[in-house]
Amino acid sequence: MQLLVLKIGGHTLDNEKELERFLADFAALTIPRILIHGGGKIATKIGDQLGLESKYVNGRRITDEAAIDLVTMVYAGLINKKIVAQLQKHNCNAIGVTGADGNILKAKKRPVKEIDYGFVGDVEPADVNAEFLSLLINQKVVPVLAPLTHSNGTMLNTNADTIASVTAIAMSKYFDIKLTLCSEKKGILRSLEDESSLITHLDESSYLKMKGEGIFTDGMLPKLDNTFSALHAGVKEVWIGDTQNLLTHLQGKNAGTLITLKEI
Amino acid sequence: MQLLVLKIGGHTLDNEKELERFLADFAALTIPRILIHGGGKIATKIGDQLGLESKYVNGRRITDEAAIDLVTMVYAGLINKKIVAQLQKHNCNAIGVTGADGNILKAKKRPVKEIDYGFVGDVEPADVNAEFLSLLINQKVVPVLAPLTHSNGTMLNTNADTIASVTAIAMSKYFDIKLTLCSEKKGILRSLEDESSLITHLDESSYLKMKGEGIFTDGMLPKLDNTFSALHAGVKEVWIGDTQNLLTHLQGKNAGTLITLKEI
Repeated sequence: MQLLVLKIGGHTLDNEKELERFLADFAALTIPRILIHGGGKIATKIGDQLGLESKYVNGRRITDEAAIDLVTMVYAGLINKKIVAQLQKHNCNAIGVTGADGNILKAKKRPVKEIDYGFVGDVEPADVNAEFLSLLINQKVVPVLAPLTHSNGTMLNTNADTIASVTAIAMSKYFDIKLTLCSEKKGILRSLEDESSLITHLDESSYLKMKGEGIFTDGMLPKLDNTFSALHAGVKEVWIGDTQNLLTHLQGKNAGTLITLKEI
Repeated sequence: MQLLVLKIGGHTLDNEKELERFLADFAALTIPRILIHGGGKIATKIGDQLGLESKYVNGRRITDEAAIDLVTMVYAGLINKKIVAQLQKHNCNAIGVTGADGNILKAKKRPVKEIDYGFVGDVEPADVNAEFLSLLINQKVVPVLAPLTHSNGTMLNTNADTIASVTAIAMSKYFDIKLTLCSEKKGILRSLEDESSLITHLDESSYLKMKGEGIFTDGMLPKLDNTFSALHAGVKEVWIGDTQNLLTHLQGKNAGTLITLKEI
């Protein structure tokens, strides 16, 4: 059975109208699915109102105790429950969870080396409670994961893309996984500024060829490398694009970038 | 099979040490259980920091849009996940939910009569998704309910005692329910200021007799009337006391006030 592991990012969360439209479309899907959401700008906005300052060391963001409380409130409370309430309105039986709930994602607090990142959790596919997620999915319940994990009694901040990737890999034990990563871009572009340069399909051999030609930017490379790691680890296909194109893609039409190991 | 439906209030939530101790004890229990928590003072504190003013009409608190966002952040985010993370630390597989999650508690937004209470939800036992809660409990997962419900795509504020009561009644279809309501008091007292006047057991005939004698205060009467309504609606027994006495009670010793329909 196919399972859609779908990640939406800050771009969608920050645009109320886009989020509403996306959630109505997502609710209307009939295939088993997991939704993973990121944070968006609202956490920063509320942090500012609370007088919290974002802390950085060597340009890397630090999650101190006030910051983890803030993102727990905003991600697991405000954003997660707004999504769940709207999905319920559209008769999609969603359940909003963090990695702590049902022990869905138990992380390792990032070890302190040159930098102490604070309350940040690193996760691997083996950390995912795939059995419990499968139980929910088999009950036609749709898990909605906030980008938070837990360890030793505290919540930890974890990147939503990472959660999507490890969850997709872990769930590939039970399902044929389609991992879809939504952002503001239409998909993978040959030339970042030119939306007409969309790559509609990417397999590993053409990826390695294009990588050799220096086509992808430094920001894109680790993302794509992670994508192929997920495919090697059991994920059937990865799709990258924006939320509007996702629905077009799920209707079987050409939109966004479909990534597979072998040419299709 | 017995199911414990346990409510903790602001008093416990506001005392970090008491909360930690209680959660360690709660995690060590082996009987099936649901934990329901209230709000505490932290929502007011964060609301003050955010510059939100509590609104009242005729002395009744109003939940406007800013207030429902605030309590969704604090109850469903901060408080609920702190509880869940600590329970997980003690190997209790908790899942933190609101009434929106898994459609556990779909409310009716309180109708506007003399007062528009705003985003407040009224619930009845028929609104509880007892099947889904039973599924979780049968998987040895412990639901932790925040005092929030949903209707028509929005979150609603709902009293934690009410949630405990309707959940207990709804779950009595599947389990023998022990509803335990924890507060700062040792139990029901004959004389409010005198802790030695604890009533260790109250059945309906002695309650009606004492009620006739004017023993209970106006604040206590609706609480006790609700308790007996729950017992008439299928709940086996109700226990009222503080969290420390609860553990003593669960060990089979005399502590707090046990309330049943018939004399035991």
